[in-house]
Amino acid sequence: MASPAPIRIKRANSVPPVVVDMETRATEADHQALRLWLRLLSCHLRIENQIRARLRENFRTTLARFDLMAQLERHPDGLRMSDLSKSLMVTGGNVTGITDQLEREKLVLRVVDRRDRRAIKAKLTTAGSARFREMAARHEQWVVELLAGLNEQEKRSMYTLLHKLKLHLNGPAVKSKPRYRSK
Amino acid sequence: MASPAPIRIKRANSVPPVVVDMETRATEADHQALRLWLRLLSCHLRIENQIRARLRENFRTTLARFDLMAQLERHPDGLRMSDLSKSLMVTGGNVTGITDQLEREKLVLRVVDRRDRRAIKAKLTTAGSARFREMAARHEQWVVELLAGLNEQEKRSMYTLLHKLKLHLNGPAVKSKPRYRSK
Repeated sequence: MASPAPIRIKRANSVPPVVVDMETRATEADHQALRLWLRLLSCHLRIENQIRARLRENFRTTLARFDLMAQLERHPDGLRMSDLSKSLMVTGGNVTGITDQLEREKLVLRVVDRRDRRAIKAKLTTAGSARFREMAARHEQWVVELLAGLNEQEKRSMYTLLHKLKLHLNGPAVKSKPRYRSK
Repeated sequence: MASPAPIRIKRANSVPPVVVDMETRATEADHQALRLWLRLLSCHLRIENQIRARLRENFRTTLARFDLMAQLERHPDGLRMSDLSKSLMVTGGNVTGITDQLEREKLVLRVVDRRDRRAIKAKLTTAGSARFREMAARHEQWVVELLAGLNEQEKRSMYTLLHKLKLHLNGPAVKSKPRYRSK
């Protein structure tokens, strides 16, 4: 079947060329944001996969367990299970299941919240805290190594840019989405 | 029990102060890398949570499903299940399970690989491709909005920095880890 002749749209002389340019720029800017997000995703994934593999290999543990212990280490008095869920930095973990596991290994214990005796908090045991610190020291070395592609100045620049991005993400423009519910 | 007197290490006069400074700088640089990674994680998590919530709300779908369809859209002839697993950008999805779901919804179909008749490929159906394009258009708008905290110049800078980081992550310094196996 012969293809039909292309439809030619005659451009009105009254449309200034700048409109066309602005549209092009808008599209270009959209693609720029998407490309940036995909590149951020890809770097994030590479770093996270390295950290997951190294945690598994060196400590026979998962990133979700490490992340949960990291949150507890920052709260020596313990964290309620609901707050713990909210504070985790990685996905892929079931908070109750991981806490159960760590409790069986005597790295975490559950205690009654002194201020609200109906609530249960999780906290690291002494052994859990020592284990976490050992892992955290290695983890920090890995991160230094994985980010070594950027010099100090570049790391500072990216830190500043991410700060600006985070302010925007925490701001009204993003938060005001009416029906958005965080999981 | 009284704690023992702290051990005082007498610093030899021959050690130049610059050594001490370099050590301080090294520690500072380590913390800088870790802080940068944690900030990157935190921005990543905020953006991803927004995208997850919006996909759920607007399309009743998950990021893992969206990501799987995105990979198939780039390969109109289909992708082997093993290659599909490798190419996914997000965690939290079971490739076989998601493919089964999408197949039941007639968005994906499984076909025999023409070049290797023992292998099975997944590909989008026409309906799947149309659905994906609709979601992708909205997804792009969301990403533009979520990254709007950075102006064009800043997005370009971050893109360039992430490019440099990615080259390092793909390079020998990271790849040569002897026992590292990607999952």
